[in-house]
Amino acid sequence: MNVLNVSLDERSYPIFIGCSLRNSADSLMSYIKGDQVLVVSNETIAPLYLENLLKNIDVAKLDTLVLPDGEQYKTMETLNTIFDALLAERHDRSTTLIALGGGVVGDITGFAAACYQRGVNFIQIPTTLLAQVDSSVGGKTAVNHILGKNMIGAFHQPQCVLIDISTLQSLPEREYRAGLAEVIKYGLITDLEFFVWLEKNMSRLLTREDDAVLYAVEHSCRLKAHVVSTDERESGLRAILNLGHTFGHAIETHKGYGKWLHGEAVAAGMCMASDLSKRLGWISDADHERVIALIAKAGLPTAPPEMTTEQFLTLMAVDKKALGGQVRLVLLERLGQAVVSADYGEKLLAATLSPS
Amino acid sequence: MNVLNVSLDERSYPIFIGCSLRNSADSLMSYIKGDQVLVVSNETIAPLYLENLLKNIDVAKLDTLVLPDGEQYKTMETLNTIFDALLAERHDRSTTLIALGGGVVGDITGFAAACYQRGVNFIQIPTTLLAQVDSSVGGKTAVNHILGKNMIGAFHQPQCVLIDISTLQSLPEREYRAGLAEVIKYGLITDLEFFVWLEKNMSRLLTREDDAVLYAVEHSCRLKAHVVSTDERESGLRAILNLGHTFGHAIETHKGYGKWLHGEAVAAGMCMASDLSKRLGWISDADHERVIALIAKAGLPTAPPEMTTEQFLTLMAVDKKALGGQVRLVLLERLGQAVVSADYGEKLLAATLSPS
Repeated sequence: MNVLNVSLDERSYPIFIGCSLRNSADSLMSYIKGDQVLVVSNETIAPLYLENLLKNIDVAKLDTLVLPDGEQYKTMETLNTIFDALLAERHDRSTTLIALGGGVVGDITGFAAACYQRGVNFIQIPTTLLAQVDSSVGGKTAVNHILGKNMIGAFHQPQCVLIDISTLQSLPEREYRAGLAEVIKYGLITDLEFFVWLEKNMSRLLTREDDAVLYAVEHSCRLKAHVVSTDERESGLRAILNLGHTFGHAIETHKGYGKWLHGEAVAAGMCMASDLSKRLGWISDADHERVIALIAKAGLPTAPPEMTTEQFLTLMAVDKKALGGQVRLVLLERLGQAVVSADYGEKLLAATLSPS
Repeated sequence: MNVLNVSLDERSYPIFIGCSLRNSADSLMSYIKGDQVLVVSNETIAPLYLENLLKNIDVAKLDTLVLPDGEQYKTMETLNTIFDALLAERHDRSTTLIALGGGVVGDITGFAAACYQRGVNFIQIPTTLLAQVDSSVGGKTAVNHILGKNMIGAFHQPQCVLIDISTLQSLPEREYRAGLAEVIKYGLITDLEFFVWLEKNMSRLLTREDDAVLYAVEHSCRLKAHVVSTDERESGLRAILNLGHTFGHAIETHKGYGKWLHGEAVAAGMCMASDLSKRLGWISDADHERVIALIAKAGLPTAPPEMTTEQFLTLMAVDKKALGGQVRLVLLERLGQAVVSADYGEKLLAATLSPS
């Protein structure tokens, strides 16, 4: 079992990563401080892993809540069902919330932990590739609003994260590939060497070979942890983690939550960011082609669905990265180095939004 | 105009206190960082002060939202109307939320600011005595849940607080007196000298003489700021600010929000805490009588409404200060010094809950 430390002063926490954490009772129990626990999962994941997890938790009061599965349930309404359960079962502020599931379960449970009695402890056990490499590092929690994704949330760091990559074996192919989008992102924004490693090892990742998956997950978490440690509250550097996300969120909102997976929308969004970077002359045509090729090899979309420029601009304007109306985008200065910029010019953006 | 600084490292902020802050445009504008502002008020306060306030705010985008007035509206539902307004008007994360009103407006607007896009700026202009001496210091924000008050919230410090005590002239007598409960509390928990000052000056406070009110508000804020600076997240000392609140919350929940004002319930709760402290032999009969006398002089209830011991215990168990089922209470070690304790014995508590 490997351990990676996310350094955030007194909010620092460890990520345990392994091929089998089934016997992780000791690690888990040492991070549960009180004698009350609520495990939140969803109807897809609970039948697979919940029972085994519960065996490893020895507290006086152990409750579970199983949410419906899907991004469309990442709402204030579902959040309220967590508060209802906590209050009905009289959990006090010494309780620990454990999220067992993908990004939706993690984000919503983390946000519930941030707000319940103004903040209680939180442990994350991510079971999807996306959640393992993305939401398990950084403490971002949120729910969606009908007018925008992740618009209501908090920064709330967990006590620890347990990543068991064997849970990925049960992940549907489409979701697994969507998770690879974020893995590729880390190479693109901050580590050319990792990007090259991905070009060489994508086929081993696609067949989910243990050692390749373990390396990709751990290295992704390490790269994200470095960025987050430098800028916990996203006042600067951290924004580069949003490569492809402004375009991607617009796609997701336009299609309706759940139609395109988050990773698929981000994949198309990264191709658009790469395209705009190429038009700016920041990266070469050849580098742009390498981006497209790797994303295509991962079986991910390399272009957005049919959307008008107007639809894109409207939905992008509400994005959190807009600052006083000016949409800032994450672009590529070169392969392996991202930059946040509003200096791209409307014309080049329009060309990216509506090629042909 | 007096300035009091609340010291919380990089979250420190000033409280401006005066008899007339109508010409406070400069102070206000220097704490608004972006060019978007949403002022949240309620239907009672807005007609009195909103127009004047808006004249002092010079930003590109200035929106207002008027909430219904009353504790029963301090809910997730009302909170959502703030998010709806922010998103419909496309406020981004550089926006500033200004709360103009009493504790409910302050708590709910502060919580909205804590969660909107994971945290935006917040300025508080409290217009009730309770809000001026209590919620303007400390960054506690929250909404109520049907099963308990303030169960869902966050710690979120404002950029600044503007206290104009002339707004108290329009406050209904009952609400003004309810605010005095918290003023008395500060004397009880931490400052015997202030308690003695209140005994001498209660009649001047009741007629709202400017210099007496100014001193009481400023000194209350100063005492609270000292406690909060020592313990921002309520891991220890800060809990003494809850004197009377565990009993008080039980009373409020039992009667239904809004039937007893918060300050009235806290007043009765402080008398109960004083009674239990007397039964424990911590304070003398004479000191207990002084507590009762001062609270009575302020026109506040000195005993709870008709409630059974069982009703009290059930409602107190869900209180945030309960730790693993054991209800910790704030009691008086002596006049002017509070302590948090679970060592009071069930029998003495039962005697306090059901005297005679």
